Amino acid sequence: MSFSVGVDVGGTNIKIGLVDEEGNIICRRRLHNNPSEPPAQTLEILAQAVLKLTRSKPVAALGIGIAGLVDHKDGFVRTSPNLPTWNKVPVKDILSRLTRLNVFCCNDANAVALGEWLYGAAKGCRNALCITLGTGIGSGIITDNHLLLGANSYAGELGHTTLSLRGPACPCGNSGCLERYVGAQAIVFRCRRLLRQQQRRVAASRNQLSLFGPSGERLSLIFELVGYNLNRLSPREIGSAARKKDKIALQVIKETGALLGLGIYNALMLLDPEIVVLGGGVSRFGKPLLQAVEQTVFARLYGSNRQLKIVLSFLGDDAGILGASQLHRLASNFTP
Amino acid sequence: MSFSVGVDVGGTNIKIGLVDEEGNIICRRRLHNNPSEPPAQTLEILAQAVLKLTRSKPVAALGIGIAGLVDHKDGFVRTSPNLPTWNKVPVKDILSRLTRLNVFCCNDANAVALGEWLYGAAKGCRNALCITLGTGIGSGIITDNHLLLGANSYAGELGHTTLSLRGPACPCGNSGCLERYVGAQAIVFRCRRLLRQQQRRVAASRNQLSLFGPSGERLSLIFELVGYNLNRLSPREIGSAARKKDKIALQVIKETGALLGLGIYNALMLLDPEIVVLGGGVSRFGKPLLQAVEQTVFARLYGSNRQLKIVLSFLGDDAGILGASQLHRLASNFTP
Repeated sequence: MSFSVGVDVGGTNIKIGLVDEEGNIICRRRLHNNPSEPPAQTLEILAQAVLKLTRSKPVAALGIGIAGLVDHKDGFVRTSPNLPTWNKVPVKDILSRLTRLNVFCCNDANAVALGEWLYGAAKGCRNALCITLGTGIGSGIITDNHLLLGANSYAGELGHTTLSLRGPACPCGNSGCLERYVGAQAIVFRCRRLLRQQQRRVAASRNQLSLFGPSGERLSLIFELVGYNLNRLSPREIGSAARKKDKIALQVIKETGALLGLGIYNALMLLDPEIVVLGGGVSRFGKPLLQAVEQTVFARLYGSNRQLKIVLSFLGDDAGILGASQLHRLASNFTP
Repeated sequence: MSFSVGVDVGGTNIKIGLVDEEGNIICRRRLHNNPSEPPAQTLEILAQAVLKLTRSKPVAALGIGIAGLVDHKDGFVRTSPNLPTWNKVPVKDILSRLTRLNVFCCNDANAVALGEWLYGAAKGCRNALCITLGTGIGSGIITDNHLLLGANSYAGELGHTTLSLRGPACPCGNSGCLERYVGAQAIVFRCRRLLRQQQRRVAASRNQLSLFGPSGERLSLIFELVGYNLNRLSPREIGSAARKKDKIALQVIKETGALLGLGIYNALMLLDPEIVVLGGGVSRFGKPLLQAVEQTVFARLYGSNRQLKIVLSFLGDDAGILGASQLHRLASNFTP
């Protein structure tokens, strides 16, 4: 039995797993990632954790998925919006030296797609689109049983496809990117606006009680969940409220799904996968999100009898570790 | 030396070529395609032409690219907007029986992409996007040295990605599809409007000569090319006028390129190819179109040092024949 190591580097956490040949994570570590720390220091700590985890075990390779633009051929992080200190970092070189393992690097959304395809929701599918919903919107694409990395390692940037030319400005320099509509920030922003509107309506109806009678509208459960401080709102509270059938939470999720569906539709036109997998933190909205996405996508699709499923992630947070741990199986893609 | 046959079935013509192992078309036939004729009859005539062309030659296979939704696995044309009688036609079965050759079918834009990738502008590229500009906007995608056909043979439908939700209605059932902005009809429509505006301006300036002096504006060369009958306008006249620096023709081409660039940008975000090839009749606009596409795409792209070229087709009208003739090389993709 041989093992491999999968590492998932996000903006706040680093997840490390030792994975057996059947795709079981047999032990794991979670490190806090301080994004302001120099990457060399972070990689040093990471390497120590890997060495402890793999001690005396036969390890085939180490794969690492990183939230940023990663040159998969050179194992180089070019830049990362969520890890601002990670600029031109030779991750492969550093980690190879520190761990003496064969190291493979890629973008985190690509690692997630590889995980879902090898072990999760897209297992056995020839063509798949795996979307990671969070602060950013990433995706990984499987075409004809290949993980598509692209000429510059930029494939799968679904979040920066344009939904509307006149949409909000995006740090990428364009406007109206899908990420600006269905990224965590945009979801929170839309929800906050609805909550403030409700707050005003409820207050007004109380003031006018004697004239118009009670409107009967009660404040959303979300107010309670954030301690009546809307600055503390995150997708987590929206999800919790939705599970208790809160109207505003469900409305926000439905709108998010409809917008996401439009972005997915364009990707489907080009890629024609048999499965779309929704993963990442925001996918924990679950069924109401999935249903809204399906409604939009299937209303737009032409061509009857099309083979297409849209599903939620099977592996959740483990997809990144599992996919990264198997990058060595694509070794031919990683030669410069 | 063995040969293969490539067939390109369009809305008005059927092109047949006998192709040698090095990708030379050593002889060819062109048949008129009457779209109202039953497809069985058309295929019968096609098969006779193929048999004459291949007489006494060792032929490995026949590949055929058809303008429509083609199930590449079963060799079945499901439906075709430009060949309205081609509904559920078992092309592979019919042609195999009539020619006794091994037959492979796919969408015409996919055949063009295969041609450009094997012998043309995208030769040697690992990832390519080859766009066919005409009445419809099709594309074929090469990912990691594979022609991407997709789970339902629908991959590459660039023309039906959405450019604007509030755009003009499309026969596909949606609105604002890229094809409605840069397809031949849309180009002619935009040009005609500009020409009518000019006509009115010139007429008005003549009437007001004594008051305002001559505006100096002369009617576009296009008026002459269509015999002053704007109903006869097609992309051909716009191209001819542009080559003589006609202002309105150049303006229309520039606008078309800018809109096309937006559609291409979204595809680049997902696919990250190293080359984009512009082919099809409308690509004969040439350099002004290419420049406008480049301007839009490169202004939007982020990530420096990106490996990306945008070029015009090398093979022109032959790409479809050449690509189709090599479909047998992807035989494993064609098993149901």
